[in-house]
Amino acid sequence: MGWSSPDRIVVRGHDLPGELLGKIDLGSMAFLEITGRRPTPQEAEVFNALLVTLVEHGMTPQAIATRLINLAAPEALQGAVAAGLLGVGSVFAGGSEQIAKLLQESLKDQPEDANLKAMATRIVEDYAARKAVIPGIGHPLHKPIDPRTPVLFAIAERNGFRGRYVALLEAISAEAERRLARSLPINATGAIGAVLCELQFPWRICRGVAVISRAVGLVGHIAEEMRNPLAREIWERTEGEVFETKD
Amino acid sequence: MGWSSPDRIVVRGHDLPGELLGKIDLGSMAFLEITGRRPTPQEAEVFNALLVTLVEHGMTPQAIATRLINLAAPEALQGAVAAGLLGVGSVFAGGSEQIAKLLQESLKDQPEDANLKAMATRIVEDYAARKAVIPGIGHPLHKPIDPRTPVLFAIAERNGFRGRYVALLEAISAEAERRLARSLPINATGAIGAVLCELQFPWRICRGVAVISRAVGLVGHIAEEMRNPLAREIWERTEGEVFETKD
Amino acid sequence: MGWSSPDRIVVRGHDLPGELLGKIDLGSMAFLEITGRRPTPQEAEVFNALLVTLVEHGMTPQAIATRLINLAAPEALQGAVAAGLLGVGSVFAGGSEQIAKLLQESLKDQPEDANLKAMATRIVEDYAARKAVIPGIGHPLHKPIDPRTPVLFAIAERNGFRGRYVALLEAISAEAERRLARSLPINATGAIGAVLCELQFPWRICRGVAVISRAVGLVGHIAEEMRNPLAREIWERTEGEVFETKD
Amino acid sequence: MGWSSPDRIVVRGHDLPGELLGKIDLGSMAFLEITGRRPTPQEAEVFNALLVTLVEHGMTPQAIATRLINLAAPEALQGAVAAGLLGVGSVFAGGSEQIAKLLQESLKDQPEDANLKAMATRIVEDYAARKAVIPGIGHPLHKPIDPRTPVLFAIAERNGFRGRYVALLEAISAEAERRLARSLPINATGAIGAVLCELQFPWRICRGVAVISRAVGLVGHIAEEMRNPLAREIWERTEGEVFETKD
Repeated sequence: MGWSSPDRIVVRGHDLPGELLGKIDLGSMAFLEITGRRPTPQEAEVFNALLVTLVEHGMTPQAIATRLINLAAPEALQGAVAAGLLGVGSVFAGGSEQIAKLLQESLKDQPEDANLKAMATRIVEDYAARKAVIPGIGHPLHKPIDPRTPVLFAIAERNGFRGRYVALLEAISAEAERRLARSLPINATGAIGAVLCELQFPWRICRGVAVISRAVGLVGHIAEEMRNPLAREIWERTEGEVFETKD
Repeated sequence: MGWSSPDRIVVRGHDLPGELLGKIDLGSMAFLEITGRRPTPQEAEVFNALLVTLVEHGMTPQAIATRLINLAAPEALQGAVAAGLLGVGSVFAGGSEQIAKLLQESLKDQPEDANLKAMATRIVEDYAARKAVIPGIGHPLHKPIDPRTPVLFAIAERNGFRGRYVALLEAISAEAERRLARSLPINATGAIGAVLCELQFPWRICRGVAVISRAVGLVGHIAEEMRNPLAREIWERTEGEVFETKD
Repeated sequence: MGWSSPDRIVVRGHDLPGELLGKIDLGSMAFLEITGRRPTPQEAEVFNALLVTLVEHGMTPQAIATRLINLAAPEALQGAVAAGLLGVGSVFAGGSEQIAKLLQESLKDQPEDANLKAMATRIVEDYAARKAVIPGIGHPLHKPIDPRTPVLFAIAERNGFRGRYVALLEAISAEAERRLARSLPINATGAIGAVLCELQFPWRICRGVAVISRAVGLVGHIAEEMRNPLAREIWERTEGEVFETKD
Repeated sequence: MGWSSPDRIVVRGHDLPGELLGKIDLGSMAFLEITGRRPTPQEAEVFNALLVTLVEHGMTPQAIATRLINLAAPEALQGAVAAGLLGVGSVFAGGSEQIAKLLQESLKDQPEDANLKAMATRIVEDYAARKAVIPGIGHPLHKPIDPRTPVLFAIAERNGFRGRYVALLEAISAEAERRLARSLPINATGAIGAVLCELQFPWRICRGVAVISRAVGLVGHIAEEMRNPLAREIWERTEGEVFETKD
């Protein structure tokens, strides 16, 4: 990953003080760390947009956990962030991994002119037969579209990263809406998963992208908690309500 | 810590299948792991009582964090327990470390007949001068006594572990009550810290005793969450209330 | 889970000071927390034996992680334990969950006189066809038997908990050894999974049993690290070797 | 922190799709999350440089812990990252917090023309009297200067953020070198702490900046581990060496 001598520090082949500091932003540095090479300006713009999308989603279970652990152990900020990050799992925030896996496995070894519509039909049928939820589409609040999705796709397109993965996910969304007769737009998680595929990220590392973004957001929650503490009230209300429920 | 050969497994000098399995309970095994030797029956009874005291304290910040992370990443139970354990810090549950440190440093190299009352007076004066909170005494709910304390001290006494550390903490509590003119009984955390001193545990490991107990309690909360899920409601109520607060 | 008033503390229906402290060991308390009821003396003996088995496995990846994080953040012992616990996953220590799931799903709704041998044959065939590894059998070191397994089964038997789950796992082991013509004894993880089924633990909570045991063992590693520090040397050797590898 | 309606998502007062995506990099987003406002272009350049500096330090204890936990629980990437982050403590990576605290407390309520040299002398004397290590200066390898420090200070200077905090730390380094007659250059951690003070970050949140950077680096280690696995060898060598040591 890197090496040092008394007067040099090299990270993934780049001189840290001379080539990276002041010349690369954190999102591009994340691209370098994950892929082993610096992003092009186009890749940097797209990847930063994906990372920024996932930073802050309000008072999520992860954010509440981080605030409560910060209340209990304020001397160990790293523990409070870690506690929240442990919730970047299958139910929340892990979805981009699932959609990237589906898209990558579906398009693997397929010819350039593969029929995406037919492929989408088979995928939707398969999920319907298993009564499984298709990842990456549908949102409880953002209907009929998730406002982040067209923006992310536009950023990808103007940088040359709107390709077959995005097209297949669009076909899946359209077919699912047709078949199930309800609004199932591509959500932000799905859009991120598809664009990570366009950037050639293996699906297994996609959850790591969410982890990086959420680390930023959870440090933000602790900073906010320092200015305007909510954790004690959250705890006391919850404790009170649970007892009420039991009475 | 241990070693294995094809037909033997030895843990801290004891043959695991032949000498430990079926012959030692988990609390005694914890004593062996921490101190390097098996407890006497007296030590085992006292140490198990301390461990049991700390297992379950209801809907604490740690328990809420564990339940929320289990909601977000139910496939990784270990992460949900770890999230809650990260809250075994200075504010909640870390107090036995602080009182054990105070007692051990105060009694270090003191003669057998040291005047504990005078020592307690100096300690209370010192804390009062620094406007610091004396660890191990006082409780918001359990007044005028914490019902766990006399039971723990009685268990310690009947097993020969009620000595100078307990006596010094009792003197501190009495002096603090006299000086501050309010109820400041030895709380369970204080009692545990003092009895761990009697068992010759170094204060630096005392937080580990709390970590073991809470691991048991937090697995219990996940088991309860599997039977009777509360986490989603806790999350949604908190999210709703926070927004209400802001409106 | 529990409730308190000024003079009472009740945990899962039991008065903590009056009914539990000094009257229940930590392993039995874990049984109470997970199942909601106190174990019988027979259940307590069996469950403690299972818990003790998993406490200490020497210098595992989890133990190394705990020691390294303790080196980096010695002021937050809870974080070092949590770091190691995060490794109680699918590869190490998570196996009792998998075998319990297999046994519970196989025996669900089966008649008393179900043919376990035929069932084992189908299971082994299914795994062989999928080229999947059967959980709970085989060990790289302990051959031809894992010395913990017969002891755990004997403890289960003398307490009335050696039943169909154990028998099915024995049949699976025998059939796998016959078919694959090599030593595939029931390992400790498999034995624990099977006996947890006999104790009526749902498979989803089995990983929690491993988490409790490992919390004990990892606190033991920190205590040992305090007496005899190894973490810095582990780190420096690893750093050196990795660079050597690259040169 | 943010709110949503069916067609809008607002993060800290900014419309996420319209004002942030494609218009802000991840480092600037971190600035927004922590401070509550978007950075100026100057602040963004400086803050990104600080974040990039901390991302990757080779095979640290944190990186080893992350790789080992990923080996043990590869299905829960978030747990492996969290395990490593728990090592962002007082010994490694927590130093920028300590130096920021020292600088902020020293310069609090001081007049514009405070004598920094005299202040540095008092600080060095105080640490020497307590035989305490001054944070932020000295490095085991990078002598006589840490090559990151002049680059970070140059980036700060060209953006208008080289002020009194940097000057005080320079005075402390010079005075310590004079008094102790050995090379004690400002190290990268010290430089980061001082420049975070120039950016008006409260010292309590400085560890969070390190946590964000390390989250990026640790995801990088997992990505590298996926391409070129080292964890099993690290574990096996360590296990072997520990036993050798004991024989």
